[in-house]
Amino acid sequence: MTPKVDTLLTNAIILTMDEEMQIFEPGALAVSGDSILAVGPQDDILANYQSDEVVDCSGKVLMPGLVNAHTHIPMTLLRGLADDLRLDVWLLGYMMPVEREFVSPEFVRLGTSLACAELIRSGVTCFADMYYFEEEVAKAAAEIGLRGLCAQTVLKFPSPDANSFEEALEYSEDYIKRWVNHPLIVPSIAPHAPYTCTEGILRASAAIAAEFDVPLHTHLAETRLEVENSLKEHGLSVIPYVERQRLFDARVLAAHCVHVDLGEMQTLARHGAGVAHNPSSNLKLASGVAPVVDMLKAGVKVGIGTDGPASNNDLDMFEEVRLAALLAKGISGDPTRLPAKTALLMATRLGAEAMHLGDITGSLEPGKRADLILVDIHPLHNAPRFRRDPDGIYAQLVYAAKSTDVSDVMVNGRWLMRARQLLTADVDEWLAQAADFARRIDAFLIEREQSVLSKLIAIGGAAEQESFEVQVKVRIPDPQVVLQNLEKPDIEILYTRHYHEYDTYFRFDDPSQGQLRYREDEFIGEDGQVARVRYRLTMIGPAREKHFPSGVLLSRSRYYAPAVHSLRFYREYFNPSSEIFIEKDRLRWRVLFQGTEFYINLDRIDQPDLGTFLEVKSRTWSLRDAEYKADIAEKLLIYLGADPAATVTQDYFDMVEG
Amino acid sequence: MTPKVDTLLTNAIILTMDEEMQIFEPGALAVSGDSILAVGPQDDILANYQSDEVVDCSGKVLMPGLVNAHTHIPMTLLRGLADDLRLDVWLLGYMMPVEREFVSPEFVRLGTSLACAELIRSGVTCFADMYYFEEEVAKAAAEIGLRGLCAQTVLKFPSPDANSFEEALEYSEDYIKRWVNHPLIVPSIAPHAPYTCTEGILRASAAIAAEFDVPLHTHLAETRLEVENSLKEHGLSVIPYVERQRLFDARVLAAHCVHVDLGEMQTLARHGAGVAHNPSSNLKLASGVAPVVDMLKAGVKVGIGTDGPASNNDLDMFEEVRLAALLAKGISGDPTRLPAKTALLMATRLGAEAMHLGDITGSLEPGKRADLILVDIHPLHNAPRFRRDPDGIYAQLVYAAKSTDVSDVMVNGRWLMRARQLLTADVDEWLAQAADFARRIDAFLIEREQSVLSKLIAIGGAAEQESFEVQVKVRIPDPQVVLQNLEKPDIEILYTRHYHEYDTYFRFDDPSQGQLRYREDEFIGEDGQVARVRYRLTMIGPAREKHFPSGVLLSRSRYYAPAVHSLRFYREYFNPSSEIFIEKDRLRWRVLFQGTEFYINLDRIDQPDLGTFLEVKSRTWSLRDAEYKADIAEKLLIYLGADPAATVTQDYFDMVEG
Repeated sequence: MTPKVDTLLTNAIILTMDEEMQIFEPGALAVSGDSILAVGPQDDILANYQSDEVVDCSGKVLMPGLVNAHTHIPMTLLRGLADDLRLDVWLLGYMMPVEREFVSPEFVRLGTSLACAELIRSGVTCFADMYYFEEEVAKAAAEIGLRGLCAQTVLKFPSPDANSFEEALEYSEDYIKRWVNHPLIVPSIAPHAPYTCTEGILRASAAIAAEFDVPLHTHLAETRLEVENSLKEHGLSVIPYVERQRLFDARVLAAHCVHVDLGEMQTLARHGAGVAHNPSSNLKLASGVAPVVDMLKAGVKVGIGTDGPASNNDLDMFEEVRLAALLAKGISGDPTRLPAKTALLMATRLGAEAMHLGDITGSLEPGKRADLILVDIHPLHNAPRFRRDPDGIYAQLVYAAKSTDVSDVMVNGRWLMRARQLLTADVDEWLAQAADFARRIDAFLIEREQSVLSKLIAIGGAAEQESFEVQVKVRIPDPQVVLQNLEKPDIEILYTRHYHEYDTYFRFDDPSQGQLRYREDEFIGEDGQVARVRYRLTMIGPAREKHFPSGVLLSRSRYYAPAVHSLRFYREYFNPSSEIFIEKDRLRWRVLFQGTEFYINLDRIDQPDLGTFLEVKSRTWSLRDAEYKADIAEKLLIYLGADPAATVTQDYFDMVEG
Repeated sequence: MTPKVDTLLTNAIILTMDEEMQIFEPGALAVSGDSILAVGPQDDILANYQSDEVVDCSGKVLMPGLVNAHTHIPMTLLRGLADDLRLDVWLLGYMMPVEREFVSPEFVRLGTSLACAELIRSGVTCFADMYYFEEEVAKAAAEIGLRGLCAQTVLKFPSPDANSFEEALEYSEDYIKRWVNHPLIVPSIAPHAPYTCTEGILRASAAIAAEFDVPLHTHLAETRLEVENSLKEHGLSVIPYVERQRLFDARVLAAHCVHVDLGEMQTLARHGAGVAHNPSSNLKLASGVAPVVDMLKAGVKVGIGTDGPASNNDLDMFEEVRLAALLAKGISGDPTRLPAKTALLMATRLGAEAMHLGDITGSLEPGKRADLILVDIHPLHNAPRFRRDPDGIYAQLVYAAKSTDVSDVMVNGRWLMRARQLLTADVDEWLAQAADFARRIDAFLIEREQSVLSKLIAIGGAAEQESFEVQVKVRIPDPQVVLQNLEKPDIEILYTRHYHEYDTYFRFDDPSQGQLRYREDEFIGEDGQVARVRYRLTMIGPAREKHFPSGVLLSRSRYYAPAVHSLRFYREYFNPSSEIFIEKDRLRWRVLFQGTEFYINLDRIDQPDLGTFLEVKSRTWSLRDAEYKADIAEKLLIYLGADPAATVTQDYFDMVEG
């Protein structure tokens, strides 16, 4: 009697994606327990096996489930939060502040559950993740029944799940220990990227991965800037730099590798590292296009990933495979460059190999786990079918099939979807919870965005500096007079400075928001050359605290911050309604006059050409002190030869607008 | 009492895509007859209109239907026929031979019907087509109820529906006359491309379009090669060249415009020409990436198209819009470059304007036709929804929505799909007919591909030349002996030639196929320089007809053809199992010997280094004549000082293999 197996799949067009790329039509496959027992021509299999569960796959392709080789699945909950922004604005302005506020074990579980449901519905049976609270990803994925490489993030700065990298390393090791022999989950450690980790973190992570013989998941060479900075800081581009940190002591899965040269590809190949290509994300964030065909030629195992759904904005591997194939052609100018067959191989067996799971999944071969999908290849949008070219079936799947054509999904011998019905996920309740998270995140961001100040604080750069200032300004017809009077005996000059200042003022529709000044300060040395440059961001409140006689003003507190990002970053992040640009030459003195310290500025406004002004300023700590200093300031003005009747109470930017 | 309208759509998130990009949430829209009567906030509309048909659109986006601004929809029947090939191999090797054989009015009607069903199911309400038998496209689309600009192709060479371009022009004019006032179909003429049309065709087409005031549809500047050839042949790049042919006397819809400079963009804008951007097709055929943002900035109306389903391989506009947005970012390095909002605008109102149909469709505005769709934006793969950013809804549609999320489609006030059920198309019967076409096309190509000769004939280049040849070859230790003997009195030299010959032999697994030789013949002038080059393709049969004594052979017929394509083309088209390359120096004489004409070749095989050979050949027409000439050939060999015992019966390529 023929032996009985758990499930027999019959009448299928079987794409094994094995080394020989065997196709069986009609083909059949026998599942026993969690594994594939046999696969081959229909007649052979039916002659040798029988089963109580026989699935007729007429009109369908039976193939290995797709492998999503790089993602951050809990970010499903942040899908569509912020789009069409530059990487830094997107990451530092939106993702990270929201993650700091909202990412918790509950957030991660919910996001993972929803993402797993989406992955199953689009034919993915195996994914490589990297996030915070990764054990929650592992738990949720295991419960739903998906196979995952789940990597705990380690960063050099505090993260939602660790106050320090030591804590993150410890958490990672504990987590790996607990999960190392799980049938579905491969635990892993993820030093986030070379530029967000110290050398110590890279070495420690590799050591942990090597000790437990689990893969290490990371981001490498995603942007040109990353490579340039690596060259600047370490004298090495990214791959040799991490090689020096002994990263490849572990079995590495590297996402992106957009900017790697031939030597680096060979390094990756020599160490058996896998690469995950993320075409949508790399285009959307404008990182570039990874040289995938060159990497494949160099012997690197290259898989395909969606990256996180916040930068994609979904987990649809059918879209990624198609884009990988199209993009390689369009960029190289060679339409034969990455054929459909190779693209689909990257999304199955090569992806599993890149994840270092090639021995258990990624192709339909006896002994491998039963991770498989059925795809309807006869819907309206994928008819007719031509049979002349044996590779035509791959083209049909890559260029015309949709994720919604996947009808059935099995992982580890267990059905997760039949006839498009999910069997292990109850999404309605999860969707309601996700909507609730979205409402709270919306409220958080809307409140933040109501105030320029809170937006400033959100990106972590601002510190309030209490700086009540007494100030008086007057238009000067002849600057020489001031320069001469500065040499008079009652003034003691503490120091002199010379600047060129380039100020950009952001204005907002709501005048109560005040304005934000981005200043580029060039210090001019004694030789007339630029000695150094400083960038500062200043929030200028809208109101004056008090108006003294003779145009002396008391200004309210300002918020200063070193401007660590570019003007372009702040422009996109704050999205001002208008801008004013002012360029000036400033001579500045710190002086003592009648026992009080003053700053004297002699400003020549070059752009627009507004003329020359004398400013006298002094810091103050109380209203009484302010009144006292306002009086002396006026005297100093007269002593310098200016006409106190000619005082100007407007800021420079007000003059431009007026 | 409030007036009654035909249909009221309520409770929707309405994206009008009008000039102000108004969004109404909750919004409502009133349809009366074929047009939109009113659109606005729910309360306003409900206060003013009532209807027997009220459609609750909760949880859905109501927006203008997508506009597919360039396609060849009957090619649905050729989807997946041949992929991952270069443009010339794909077009000349597969598409055109199959079209010559199969394209008929029936083919066009069936392909159009299936394509319209696919378009409706993916949310397209309006398309711009270009094909043969275009009146059949018009009929089928009108019957199903889609809006279309249907353009009849005109080519300078014979096509499936016209033996000459005069016939095609006449057909076009007749067709336009009959359809010019149709409520759904805008008839149009399509001079295929500048390089497939004469100047006269371009001028005549523009004149016909102008006379009937219908748009003109064409392909412009698709590949770099097209631009280079235009510069070479006309001294002008593509846009100025067609401008000179007065093409812009008509309202032009130009597909592709991948390779246009700023001046050309301004020309397009000045003439009010529309452009259809086809990102998938341009990547898949490796044509490049069109500078769409620059064109938009220059004031060109740029829409988005799928191109034909044989080069895409489907009609999914959701994929095209997403790809347009991603690609513009990735190529420019600027992730803010083509925001989702602009991409969706290109796929709606701008697309309609590019098609010169902006006054009647492309946005939801009172007075425009009711061409609209409902899209579910709360499926699993598009949750959650954030509301902070008012443009977030566009990002949701562009980056995460799928064509399968479209639930309902109305064109010209008529429902074509409700709850994903097609109302005007019966696809099952069509799919069966399409499968039948596919079987016949498969059989045609399989038969053709069984024989190298029929593949050669299919690309139109081969003509059989009856050339039975008597030939004898012998290895020559000292070429000087032959050269001296050629001066002997019994030989009359008719002419002398000197060549360098570079031969590539394609071999096939099946030896009965013979082999194909691609020869590059350099004629060497008296000065030793290359005077000119000739490329020839020769099919060499596998068998010898007869073997005479002394190694004299009678070879069987050969097929010669001028090699109009590149070696690369033939390599990809014929896909040989192996290749042999031989480079030789050939001195050739045409002589008279004993009253008979012979060719004498003195061949020095340089690569690989095989030595020098003397060949004596003569054409022959009958076996008796062959026997007679074989005898004289042997005598000539001896007369030239060669040893007839040293004859070689192998071809040069056999020596290489051996």
